[in-house]
Amino acid sequence: MEPLRVGLAGLGTVGGGVVRLLKQQAELLEQRCGQRIELVAASARDLNKVRDLPLEGVRIVPDARSLSTDPAVDLVVEAIGGADGVAREVVELALQNGKPVVTANKALLARHGRALADLSQKHQSCILWEAAVAGGIPVIKGIREGLAANRIEQVFGILNGTCNYILSTMSATGRDFADVLAEAQELGYAEADPSFDIDGIDTAHKLALLAGLSFGAAPDFDAIRIEGIRHVSALDIKFAAELGYVIKLLAIARQRDGGLEQRVQPCMVRAHSPLGQVGGPFNAVIAQGDYADRMMWSGRGAGAHPTASAVVADILDIARGNHPPLFGVPVADLKTYPPLLPAACTGSYYVRLMVKDQPGVIADVAAILRDFNVSMQSFLQHGRAPDEAVPVVFTTHDTSEASILDSLQRIGQLATVCEQPRLMRVLDQL
Amino acid sequence: MEPLRVGLAGLGTVGGGVVRLLKQQAELLEQRCGQRIELVAASARDLNKVRDLPLEGVRIVPDARSLSTDPAVDLVVEAIGGADGVAREVVELALQNGKPVVTANKALLARHGRALADLSQKHQSCILWEAAVAGGIPVIKGIREGLAANRIEQVFGILNGTCNYILSTMSATGRDFADVLAEAQELGYAEADPSFDIDGIDTAHKLALLAGLSFGAAPDFDAIRIEGIRHVSALDIKFAAELGYVIKLLAIARQRDGGLEQRVQPCMVRAHSPLGQVGGPFNAVIAQGDYADRMMWSGRGAGAHPTASAVVADILDIARGNHPPLFGVPVADLKTYPPLLPAACTGSYYVRLMVKDQPGVIADVAAILRDFNVSMQSFLQHGRAPDEAVPVVFTTHDTSEASILDSLQRIGQLATVCEQPRLMRVLDQL
Repeated sequence: MEPLRVGLAGLGTVGGGVVRLLKQQAELLEQRCGQRIELVAASARDLNKVRDLPLEGVRIVPDARSLSTDPAVDLVVEAIGGADGVAREVVELALQNGKPVVTANKALLARHGRALADLSQKHQSCILWEAAVAGGIPVIKGIREGLAANRIEQVFGILNGTCNYILSTMSATGRDFADVLAEAQELGYAEADPSFDIDGIDTAHKLALLAGLSFGAAPDFDAIRIEGIRHVSALDIKFAAELGYVIKLLAIARQRDGGLEQRVQPCMVRAHSPLGQVGGPFNAVIAQGDYADRMMWSGRGAGAHPTASAVVADILDIARGNHPPLFGVPVADLKTYPPLLPAACTGSYYVRLMVKDQPGVIADVAAILRDFNVSMQSFLQHGRAPDEAVPVVFTTHDTSEASILDSLQRIGQLATVCEQPRLMRVLDQL
Repeated sequence: MEPLRVGLAGLGTVGGGVVRLLKQQAELLEQRCGQRIELVAASARDLNKVRDLPLEGVRIVPDARSLSTDPAVDLVVEAIGGADGVAREVVELALQNGKPVVTANKALLARHGRALADLSQKHQSCILWEAAVAGGIPVIKGIREGLAANRIEQVFGILNGTCNYILSTMSATGRDFADVLAEAQELGYAEADPSFDIDGIDTAHKLALLAGLSFGAAPDFDAIRIEGIRHVSALDIKFAAELGYVIKLLAIARQRDGGLEQRVQPCMVRAHSPLGQVGGPFNAVIAQGDYADRMMWSGRGAGAHPTASAVVADILDIARGNHPPLFGVPVADLKTYPPLLPAACTGSYYVRLMVKDQPGVIADVAAILRDFNVSMQSFLQHGRAPDEAVPVVFTTHDTSEASILDSLQRIGQLATVCEQPRLMRVLDQL
């Protein structure tokens, strides 16, 4: 059988991992897909940076786009990154030329998923993107194929290793966000400009894809309510621990009454729950299907090797003729969901108030909660400092998001409440 | 496009779940695989038992074998069970007639895997078996396809819900094995004859399959060293808890120096580790690949709905043309591994001795351990009862299995040691 000729756009961390894997496991890969996988060409901006890679016999081209039109390339791996620019052109050109594409580019798919699904279907090609979400964890295949007999009801994920590292370290050490971020930057675990990670954008890109796949819809990035981890304080982490929780940046997508709730936000989960145990650089995804019930995947969410594992798994799928639609169903069957309004979203919450330590404060707060039909589950106040600001913490039973937001707005107006109340979702069931 | 016509052999728990799923999700399934899945015929021994199933329009036949030769059936689901007899005939006949087979039958595949791989290859057909291991968890696809770019180094699993329920309940309540087993039988969580589960046979069938797939070999059931949970005592569970562990029945397969270690045995894992958290009826699998590193799947390992989820996922794969070899590689590429000898297996261990409470006992034990090069990690002795039998517990650092077995044989011969020492593997790294 003829080899499958791969063109690799981008020789950075991901691309380099793919080069090494294809070289090292060549024989194994051929056994597993029945075809030799041959890296024939690759593009690099800076040839000096790729000198350590085993690129003998690989044609190096300066313009990645030429791979997509090259008749000697059967499949294009896009490992450049970015929602637009060259990466997008490479993918579009490859599809237009009937070449299947493998990519780890979540930004591209989250932003242009529907158009790319259209394009790939029109040209009877395909895009596989296991590496775009949760690195080496085969969760995209798991949901698309493994849970294909299920209606998915909800999906949760810890999808950004940088955030999870920062939050885990804050928990373990009691240190502040800024301090741990600075250290993570020094260690290379966080970028010099960390906003893409810590403001939740990266997680939201991945959530858009996970939700699209799970609910049979095109990704709807703009519908995601995104809250990052900058405001997570050592104080809230300490209270969380006292209540038996840890704080994780979660991606959440839930379908209810025909609407879709999609959000990225720091949440409290039980410290000893499966998600609570996902520490440091690890990622995890939970998907709940109507027949399979709750499934969890966890493992390495990033890094050259795990990502290469996912990219090459996709290449093997294509070699074996597995060409699923981009979001699991044909474009014509993709659904559109209206976002779920806060009144329709329910959950339990953690609230921290900074109040003047004087009699009657709690009575005022409790009265407002009662008026908004919010019921308290637990309550903590430590230490006394008459007439100074002290933290008061409570958690609620299930309530609508609208009720808790409205009640907190009123509580924030009390003269005895010194700061904007801090609110965090509590996910007891995970 | 013509529908894919399914013949279902067996309408028990699994078969009934498949009938309901195919009916309820018909539209969704067609979107996801591009073809209508039509249940055209099914076999049942007792028609009275299937009256509640939505079987309108489904031909019911008395002899399951007739499905495999029926030209109006494109694919056969074998949901009868058992390593031989009708189940085996149904599968063989279907393959001989070029029909793909989907099965949940671990005993059949563990016993006759190589012959069936041969047969399916010879007739250019296929067998998919996601439901045979870990019920609804898509771990077979995850390893076969998701981790296809990896050399798998080791695999661990909690694969039997009955054992996990019994051990979890013993941990939670402090009750004895016999007592909890009797209750599990009353509740329907354990069979009237529970030996298949509690003696580890079911777990070993699944391990044979997981190991075959992971290491590219035919299943070698007879090479598995199997130890069940009958002898797990409330006392050992109590000591385990004190040391921070819980006891789980683990399936373990590890490749080292060209040999394969395969065993089923109760092990201690850290109570707060990912595997330690897998309670009650849940299953979990960890696979470690050279590129993806350690991956974990967890979810429902049994039950009509999760199993049906896995069976129908396989049907959809076949509809979409995904026809992988039975154990991931062509028969000619299947490897044979010699079993790893005890001298080559290393691990840490928990040992409980019942000793006469008199001076010098521990010195004798410690001297023997030193002579066999076994080093103690921790040591516990509670209470005193001069000249009576008291439990003494220690854990070891990494040592060869041969050394610990030899040293325990010698220790068992000491006059002050009243019972055969109890030995259990400790897996700190999981």
